[in-house]
Amino acid sequence: MPNMLVVGSVAYDTVDTPSGKNENQLGGSATYFSVASSYLTDVAVVAVVGGDFDPGDRSMLSDRGIDTSGLAQTDGNTFRWSGSYREDLNSAVTLETQLNVFADFAPELGDSHRSLPYLFLANIDPNLQASVLSQMSARPKMVACDTMNLWIDIARPALVSLIAQVDVLMINEAEALQLTERDGVAAAATSLLENGPSAVVIKRGEYGAVVFHRDFTFAVPAYPLVSVVDPTGAGDSFAGGFLGYLSSVDDTGNDAIRRAAVVGSVMASFAVESYGMDRLRSLSASDIDARFNAFVELTRFHPLGGGQGLPVRPQFGN
Amino acid sequence: MPNMLVVGSVAYDTVDTPSGKNENQLGGSATYFSVASSYLTDVAVVAVVGGDFDPGDRSMLSDRGIDTSGLAQTDGNTFRWSGSYREDLNSAVTLETQLNVFADFAPELGDSHRSLPYLFLANIDPNLQASVLSQMSARPKMVACDTMNLWIDIARPALVSLIAQVDVLMINEAEALQLTERDGVAAAATSLLENGPSAVVIKRGEYGAVVFHRDFTFAVPAYPLVSVVDPTGAGDSFAGGFLGYLSSVDDTGNDAIRRAAVVGSVMASFAVESYGMDRLRSLSASDIDARFNAFVELTRFHPLGGGQGLPVRPQFGN
Repeated sequence: MPNMLVVGSVAYDTVDTPSGKNENQLGGSATYFSVASSYLTDVAVVAVVGGDFDPGDRSMLSDRGIDTSGLAQTDGNTFRWSGSYREDLNSAVTLETQLNVFADFAPELGDSHRSLPYLFLANIDPNLQASVLSQMSARPKMVACDTMNLWIDIARPALVSLIAQVDVLMINEAEALQLTERDGVAAAATSLLENGPSAVVIKRGEYGAVVFHRDFTFAVPAYPLVSVVDPTGAGDSFAGGFLGYLSSVDDTGNDAIRRAAVVGSVMASFAVESYGMDRLRSLSASDIDARFNAFVELTRFHPLGGGQGLPVRPQFGN
Repeated sequence: MPNMLVVGSVAYDTVDTPSGKNENQLGGSATYFSVASSYLTDVAVVAVVGGDFDPGDRSMLSDRGIDTSGLAQTDGNTFRWSGSYREDLNSAVTLETQLNVFADFAPELGDSHRSLPYLFLANIDPNLQASVLSQMSARPKMVACDTMNLWIDIARPALVSLIAQVDVLMINEAEALQLTERDGVAAAATSLLENGPSAVVIKRGEYGAVVFHRDFTFAVPAYPLVSVVDPTGAGDSFAGGFLGYLSSVDDTGNDAIRRAAVVGSVMASFAVESYGMDRLRSLSASDIDARFNAFVELTRFHPLGGGQGLPVRPQFGN
C-alpha cells in the first residue's frame, strides 16, 4: 500500500552534456521522483505514456516497488524532450519538445490514490496540479509542488492560486526571482511564504538548495562531484528524496524537514553522476548511507561550546 | 604586538549597486581584511596611500588596534576604483581604475613584520606577493593568498609559482576554473591542491564558499540576507575572518579551519550589508556571536544516531 503519490511526466530524453550525447533515456519528473523516493517509501505514480513505452521500463519501476497502476498507456508516442547542457551544467537549453500523449494528459486519480497522505505535484500545468489536489478525498499531510518558467509566463494566476494551497513549493532560483520580481532569493522566498506555503525550497543547481521555512532557514550544499555527467532530473530526484524521507518517517516537523533536504541532496547527487536513471536506479543502502554521511562531513563544524562564544576581542568589538 | 600581516591595497572606491551609488568610500583588500580580522586578532597592514588619504581613515584603523606602521604615505593620490553591481551582485563591472600611488607599490617589510606567524597576501601582482613572502625571516605558520583574473592573464607563471608556496589559496569560482581550465569547482580544486597548497577556498559570492583541503571538503553557505547593499570586499572580509580566527586561536588544524570558514562567512555577511566599511567597522561582540550562531542554525541537521542509518528499504536499496 503506497503512502505517497506523484503526478507528473514520464519521458524519453535525449541529452547533450560535456560528457557526450545520450539518446532516448528514460526520464520525466515522475520517473526521477518515484525512483529516488522508492528507496525510502511506497510511492504511486500517475502519468501517461504512449504505445512506444518500453515494457522493460515499466518493469524497472514496479520491480522497485513503485505502484504503476496509475501509469496510463494510450495511443501515440511518449513525451520526448531533448536538451543541451554544453554551455551551462546548471541550466538546460531545450532543443526539442514533443509533448505527444502528454499534450492531453488530464490526470484522474483512482480510489486507492485519493487518500494518500503525501503528494508531489511535479512540474505540469498548474491547472492540472490544482485538479489533482481537488481530487484528493482528504487534505494530505503534506503537498509539495514544482513549477517552471513556462507556467509563470502563461498561467501565472493559476500558479499563484496553486502555491497558496501547497505546503512546500520547490522552485529553481531563477524562477523564484521571476515569479516574485525580487532580486535575491531571501527576498523572493519571504514574498512566497506570505502567499501560503509553510516552506519554499529554492533549488540552485550545483550550489545546492535553501529551505526557507516559516520557522527557520536551512541551507544545504550540493555534493561537490568531480564529474557531473547529466544534470537532468536533479530537482525531481531532490524532491523524491525530500518527500520520500518525510513520508517514510511520517514526520513533517522542522528537524525532519532539515534532514529531508539532505536526503534530497543525496538523491540529486546520485542522479547527476550518470545519464538518466543509470546511477539513481541501482543504489545500495550502503551507497545512500555513505553519501548521507558525506554530507554530514561536508557541512559539520564545531561551534564553541559552553556559551563561550568566539574569541572576539572585547575592546574592538565595541 | 601583531601576530598577523596583510599586504594589499588601501583604496577609495566608488560603487554603483541596486541600492544606489556611493562615492569615494574607504576600501581596498588590506582594509577589508584588517578591519574584519581586527575583531579577533592583532593585525598589521602593509600598503600605500597618497597625500589625499584622510587622516580620519588611518585613525579608524589604528583605533581598531590595527598596526598601521606599514601603511606608507607618498606623493600622489590613493588608489581609486569604480565599479558597478547593477547587472549582477555576484560580480562587479569595473568602470574605472586609477592605480595612482599603487602603481609603484613595492612592499618592503619592516623588521617587526618579517617574523609574524600568519600572513595574507591579498590580491596584488604575484611577483610582489612572492617578494613579500621571501622577505619573511621565518616561514609563517600559515600563508594564504588571493588573486584575480588579471594575473592569470598576464602573470600566470609567477602566479602558479606563488600558489606552490602558500598554504591556502583563496580564489573566486570563475578564476579557479580559468586558472585550471577545468569545468567544475571540485575538479579545479583537485588540480590546484596537486600544485602545492594544503587548502583551496573557492569563493562563490552569494552561494558561499567551499574549502577543499587535502584532508576534507567543507561547504559553508553565504548568509541569506534579504538585502545586499554592496558586495565590495566580501572576499577580503571572508579572508580576514578566516585567518583572523586561526591566528587568534593559533590553530591550523582541520576543525579550526572549518570553524574559520564560518567566521569568514560571518564577516563577509556583515561587509555586504552596507556600503564600504560602514557595517563591518562597527560590530559588537554580540553581533558577531549572534551571526555565528545564525550560521549554526542555518546549517545544522541531526544525523541519525546509533549507527541507525537512513530508513532505506532493504529490498529496494540493493
